[in-house]
Amino acid sequence: MMKHESLDTFITDLASKAPTPGGGGASALGGAIGSALGSMVGNLTLGKKKYAEYEPDIRLLLDKLSHNQEELLALMDQDAKAFEPLSKAYALPKNTEEEIAQKEEVLEQALYAASLVPIDIMRKSVEALLIQEELSVKGTRIAISDIAVGVQFLRAALLGASMNVYINTKSMKNRDNAKELNKEADELIQKGTTIADKVYQYVLDLLR
Amino acid sequence: MMKHESLDTFITDLASKAPTPGGGGASALGGAIGSALGSMVGNLTLGKKKYAEYEPDIRLLLDKLSHNQEELLALMDQDAKAFEPLSKAYALPKNTEEEIAQKEEVLEQALYAASLVPIDIMRKSVEALLIQEELSVKGTRIAISDIAVGVQFLRAALLGASMNVYINTKSMKNRDNAKELNKEADELIQKGTTIADKVYQYVLDLLR
Repeated sequence: MMKHESLDTFITDLASKAPTPGGGGASALGGAIGSALGSMVGNLTLGKKKYAEYEPDIRLLLDKLSHNQEELLALMDQDAKAFEPLSKAYALPKNTEEEIAQKEEVLEQALYAASLVPIDIMRKSVEALLIQEELSVKGTRIAISDIAVGVQFLRAALLGASMNVYINTKSMKNRDNAKELNKEADELIQKGTTIADKVYQYVLDLLR
Repeated sequence: MMKHESLDTFITDLASKAPTPGGGGASALGGAIGSALGSMVGNLTLGKKKYAEYEPDIRLLLDKLSHNQEELLALMDQDAKAFEPLSKAYALPKNTEEEIAQKEEVLEQALYAASLVPIDIMRKSVEALLIQEELSVKGTRIAISDIAVGVQFLRAALLGASMNVYINTKSMKNRDNAKELNKEADELIQKGTTIADKVYQYVLDLLR
């Protein structure tokens, strides 16, 4: 699994022209970083008298964030796996009418499959943003700045992953599928950036 | 060095209540990811006939990005190092007037030093954003989506690091120092987010 690589190796591979990791894998990692920053705030809140009333809620949020973080780290591998058949499909010959038809069909399936992974990264990022929103109310003030850092990472993960949805749907022949995927991506962006910008502004107003 | 840790270890430590890594280290990593995505686009552009006229420029940008990436990875360690004296200063006793004066002086110095690291992360992120802007014109269209992912990471690094400037300057007694640091952070945000939002919108208009 990619998560067992060192930061240095991951960044070096990302910077290279190798097909993966690319923007999709980076976005999944960004989502995991954003979730982890939420967990940090939750963990710093547990056991503090001042926030005792929120302790059961915080424990629930920590559980959710931990799942989210693991799922996002796993999505790094899924993104790389979904890219393989796509790059193979692009390389298929199209010399005869039969080959052209065959390539179109294989490519269409690969484009669709490769769009589902970033949609999943976006969904998980929005879930984590909802948790961060709750933590901005119930989490310790000591780590309030880390909430704002977390939402910025989740915002980047959300918008970053959307790029891989849009670049794939642009090439899809089945426009109904493309529209449906774009619609979900648009809605996730709308929902997620609204939360992210609101929480960031709330923290900024406390600090600046 | 922190960059030799696995992604999994880094994320687990980030999620824990250990003082570092926190939002500062995460922001530095986000900047390195954003720089690496720029390098990926540059590396995919080299040797392509269509972009031959830009080859010398691309090589120059790749050199700059590579430096930037390494400096940002090193800033992860510097951030952790600057946090140590700060957390020690917060723990100093203040039972006598002498202790109070002593704590104030030590804390002031630690707050200032701990603000310089995130300012550096912000500067490097803005430098990388300027490079990404140039790559959005001269880089291969094949990887245009990765430019947009890169600018979102650099935007998150910039805004994330600013949080650590603002949370430190808020506690500083020397308001001249605080104002100067805040002013630079404000200006870097203004400059960086303008570039990031412009480049992201440019790519979005191509894809969506």
